[in-house]
Amino acid sequence: MSYQAPVKDMLFCMKELAGLEEVAKIPGFEESGVETAQAVLEECAKFNEGVVAPLNWEGDKNPGGWNNGRVTTAPGFKEAFRQYAEGGWQGLQHPTEFGGQGLPKTIGAACGEILNSANLSFALCPLLTDGAVEALLTAGTSEQQRLYIPKMLSGEWTGTMNLTEPQAGSDLALVRTKAVPQGDGSYRVSGQKIFITYGEHDMADNIVHLVLARTPDAPDGVKGISLFIVPKFMVNADGSLGSRNDVYCASIEHKMGIKASPTAVLVYGDDKGEVGPGAIGYLVGQENRGLEYMFIMMNAARFAVGVQGIAVAERAYQKAVQYAKDRVQSRPVDGSLPAAAPIIHHPDVRRMLMTMRAYTEGCRAMATVAAAAYDAAHHHPDAEVRKQNQAFYEFMVPLVKGYSTEMSLDVTSLGVQVHGGMGFIEETGAAQYYRDAKILTIYEGTTAIQANDLVGRKTARDGGQTAKAIAAQIEATETQLAGRGSVAARSMLKRLKAARAAFMDVVDFVAGNTKGSPNAVFAGSVPYLMLAGNVVAGWQMARALMVAEDKAAAGEDVAFMQAKVTTARFYAEHLLSKAPGMRDSILEGGDSVTALALDAF
Amino acid sequence: MSYQAPVKDMLFCMKELAGLEEVAKIPGFEESGVETAQAVLEECAKFNEGVVAPLNWEGDKNPGGWNNGRVTTAPGFKEAFRQYAEGGWQGLQHPTEFGGQGLPKTIGAACGEILNSANLSFALCPLLTDGAVEALLTAGTSEQQRLYIPKMLSGEWTGTMNLTEPQAGSDLALVRTKAVPQGDGSYRVSGQKIFITYGEHDMADNIVHLVLARTPDAPDGVKGISLFIVPKFMVNADGSLGSRNDVYCASIEHKMGIKASPTAVLVYGDDKGEVGPGAIGYLVGQENRGLEYMFIMMNAARFAVGVQGIAVAERAYQKAVQYAKDRVQSRPVDGSLPAAAPIIHHPDVRRMLMTMRAYTEGCRAMATVAAAAYDAAHHHPDAEVRKQNQAFYEFMVPLVKGYSTEMSLDVTSLGVQVHGGMGFIEETGAAQYYRDAKILTIYEGTTAIQANDLVGRKTARDGGQTAKAIAAQIEATETQLAGRGSVAARSMLKRLKAARAAFMDVVDFVAGNTKGSPNAVFAGSVPYLMLAGNVVAGWQMARALMVAEDKAAAGEDVAFMQAKVTTARFYAEHLLSKAPGMRDSILEGGDSVTALALDAF
Repeated sequence: MSYQAPVKDMLFCMKELAGLEEVAKIPGFEESGVETAQAVLEECAKFNEGVVAPLNWEGDKNPGGWNNGRVTTAPGFKEAFRQYAEGGWQGLQHPTEFGGQGLPKTIGAACGEILNSANLSFALCPLLTDGAVEALLTAGTSEQQRLYIPKMLSGEWTGTMNLTEPQAGSDLALVRTKAVPQGDGSYRVSGQKIFITYGEHDMADNIVHLVLARTPDAPDGVKGISLFIVPKFMVNADGSLGSRNDVYCASIEHKMGIKASPTAVLVYGDDKGEVGPGAIGYLVGQENRGLEYMFIMMNAARFAVGVQGIAVAERAYQKAVQYAKDRVQSRPVDGSLPAAAPIIHHPDVRRMLMTMRAYTEGCRAMATVAAAAYDAAHHHPDAEVRKQNQAFYEFMVPLVKGYSTEMSLDVTSLGVQVHGGMGFIEETGAAQYYRDAKILTIYEGTTAIQANDLVGRKTARDGGQTAKAIAAQIEATETQLAGRGSVAARSMLKRLKAARAAFMDVVDFVAGNTKGSPNAVFAGSVPYLMLAGNVVAGWQMARALMVAEDKAAAGEDVAFMQAKVTTARFYAEHLLSKAPGMRDSILEGGDSVTALALDAF
Repeated sequence: MSYQAPVKDMLFCMKELAGLEEVAKIPGFEESGVETAQAVLEECAKFNEGVVAPLNWEGDKNPGGWNNGRVTTAPGFKEAFRQYAEGGWQGLQHPTEFGGQGLPKTIGAACGEILNSANLSFALCPLLTDGAVEALLTAGTSEQQRLYIPKMLSGEWTGTMNLTEPQAGSDLALVRTKAVPQGDGSYRVSGQKIFITYGEHDMADNIVHLVLARTPDAPDGVKGISLFIVPKFMVNADGSLGSRNDVYCASIEHKMGIKASPTAVLVYGDDKGEVGPGAIGYLVGQENRGLEYMFIMMNAARFAVGVQGIAVAERAYQKAVQYAKDRVQSRPVDGSLPAAAPIIHHPDVRRMLMTMRAYTEGCRAMATVAAAAYDAAHHHPDAEVRKQNQAFYEFMVPLVKGYSTEMSLDVTSLGVQVHGGMGFIEETGAAQYYRDAKILTIYEGTTAIQANDLVGRKTARDGGQTAKAIAAQIEATETQLAGRGSVAARSMLKRLKAARAAFMDVVDFVAGNTKGSPNAVFAGSVPYLMLAGNVVAGWQMARALMVAEDKAAAGEDVAFMQAKVTTARFYAEHLLSKAPGMRDSILEGGDSVTALALDAF
């Protein structure tokens, strides 16, 4: 079950598709060119392959547990987290002024993939801390930033996102947790939060909960939600820890996957701490703007969860390849070998592995390009460049989250399938990826929630302008492809053109009908998201194909480049080829989605 | 987590699609008309809903275990199996002369679905026993039949299929288990078998293992495999039990799903019994024809596993519907309700539920029609009718097995998804279906093995004749659809026509190239299987649509019939619409499947 980080492909995505050298021209990122990227990735690979990956399977079997409010994490997690923190990995993408490394997301996203491939359960703790840091950087006071962020980047403390309540999942308007101002600038928070990842654990000295709650006079719905810092232990002005706050882990969930990540039920205000009843919390930003701030965390987390999809897909792929090369069974159908051969010689095993590979590489390319847009959107000196990149990045977030995680279900399922009966046996390890992956299409907003975002905020709101700008870029890629004579380029051109046309049809439909016929549009919202993700990832594979053809022709890393061409072609012929059918069912299938009488179900 | 058998839809499939009244004209099935079917199904529903279904979730949590060769099954299994046997369910489809009920498969398949929906793990024991009975009926001596079958139908004994060995999974040519003749008509069997479902358990007095093994002078490969009866306890001439045979359960597997079905490693010939070293076995049929006989079991079992796919999909669907009607979250996008509503009001939840429903109903229709063909193939007095039905049924087996089980992965995944975060929590129960379903695409021949069968034996061998005869029948259905004016019929016609055309293109490709370009054909073998299953299930939904439109117009069971029309239309617009894209990737995508250099993986 060894894992080897795909550093070469990551560098290819950064350099050739995401324009890392351009990112490195942005002030502050001057040190973040290809050499830095390579050095960081190799170090990251070494740490995760050696320290974090070996804990993955053991953590699934023995995930630790809850005892009277205390949570013990899986064997080795505490020590690995210490090493993670000491290596400076928690601060990788965060500002140097708080002790971070200040690297661009273009590089950080790849490190995130490596960490998540190594161990999805372990990686969730840093992932949530990243989100909390992001929210504090945006909306926290400078005092809050000074007090909390350095300790979080050093790994002494970790962060959480407290949104969900039993009655309030996707629908945060239903949040009931209360926060009552105490007149001294603090609030007393009471209520119950569920599904809090790493809401309690033993890997750090303190946990910084960021909690959505309502003040007494807050309006109903999402416009009455505020964001609070509620530390597990109170924090003194000098950063030392004080009394135990009144937030308590009532239980942890028994989950299908990511078992080694404790998912906590947190009770606020049950008088279980040392501060009297009501957890002491501090407002972040302004009252009633909590959801806005939470979306900062959530957008960071959504992108990161998309990367988790890529990560678990990569891990499942590597495992399946290893098995397919080892397992001997049956003669090849073309008679090319005289006896039973490793199953990788069988066309259908190849089809499965290529599907896994193409999905993974396509989504990695898409995520890397999105990450570079994030860097430009946040740090480029030119406002117009920032604006364009921001629009592009925001369009990409639901795609990276939705498409990469949905594809990870297919990929991890194929991973089990390649193993045959052995795949169903837990000791083999392939089943864990299948179980782990299923949460990815759910948390940080289900695929449907991502699709709502894509339809509403990202497509209908600007009349499809951003989507069409992307389509125009794809068309430019088609023009480049048309200038090439290779079979692969011609095949890609054919499928990309048809897929882009399908995408544009659907964009027009969505932009034109979201207000007037919302049911018809939202009946196709997830298919639209899948189509958009497919097209954009396919587009990146088309760009990769051209770069790789040229480099192979120039004799540069020929085997890698030829493999990229073949994978891109596979993507076109087997994945992009689904696009026209998806268009048809979105444009013509809306009625049959919603026509069934309620009591006929 | 209550389950309600879809008796009405089952009867619809039997009566309106599979021609149950025609089946009831076959000599021997005169008592098996609609009234009998309804009575049997209702009784079956009552038993399984009340007794078997409630054990499902508990069995997952507490699946029993192994202790020094003995296997204890999950709580309640033993008693439920006793009731199952006493109810006569094991003998349902088997000859009355051995104590069976002699019902047609058309009805038996529906009972199988109900049992499997209730409890996939429990149902596996009867499923394997059915297969063993089938093999003995075909190839056993009349003495063997007399000695074993009545006890198996009464549930006193159960049966197993022993094929797999560590080195021999899909590739049975690699079987090594030995059987040495003793001169007295018996053989001594030694070797190791793995993945033996219910290979050891405490639910019956004896277990009749049917074992593939090689005699000392047998030729290499699959032509040197013979089939043996190896009873756990020796059987005296009067049917009473004798010494403990030398077959021993060394361990049971720790699996991702169907946890309550013990999957045994069986060791033969370790001198652990009371008969000296070497398990005593009896040849079934002739030496070296074991694989042929095993295929009888396997074909019965493959069909039954296809039905398992439908069964787990139905259960997942029912559970998801229940949750979607209960869970309140967010206002409907069309503003039709003033506040947060049950999530079934959201278009994407509808899309998920309709996808689950359409797949399940489509596959149920296909399986029921296939079952009726089996009945005619085996029992119709007219040889020509038998022959045609046999060809049709044999074509259907890989479709029922492959397509119904692959769709069950999508359906059970959507089932989790509808539940959101709750779906990932084991206590909810949706995750169990997701975990359970994954074995279905693997055992009794992986999807790739089904696809090999479809390509080789079922399509290429007769030059695509059977496939084209089916396409011609589909075309006739199109002609009927063309005579209708409804939106649903027009939509179905459009998609069915395109899908059938895609199917025919692929059939021509497969028939024309399997010998000359095996890699190109087998690169698309599973996609061909998925396309064929999609088209045939869609065709049945088209037939259902027409019947339902007519009945609704006539005022017969209007709500049910209208729901069927809508579901059929959904099938056309959202599932059949995938067919042209599948054709494209099969016909034009073969090269990219196999082009990647081995060491590039």
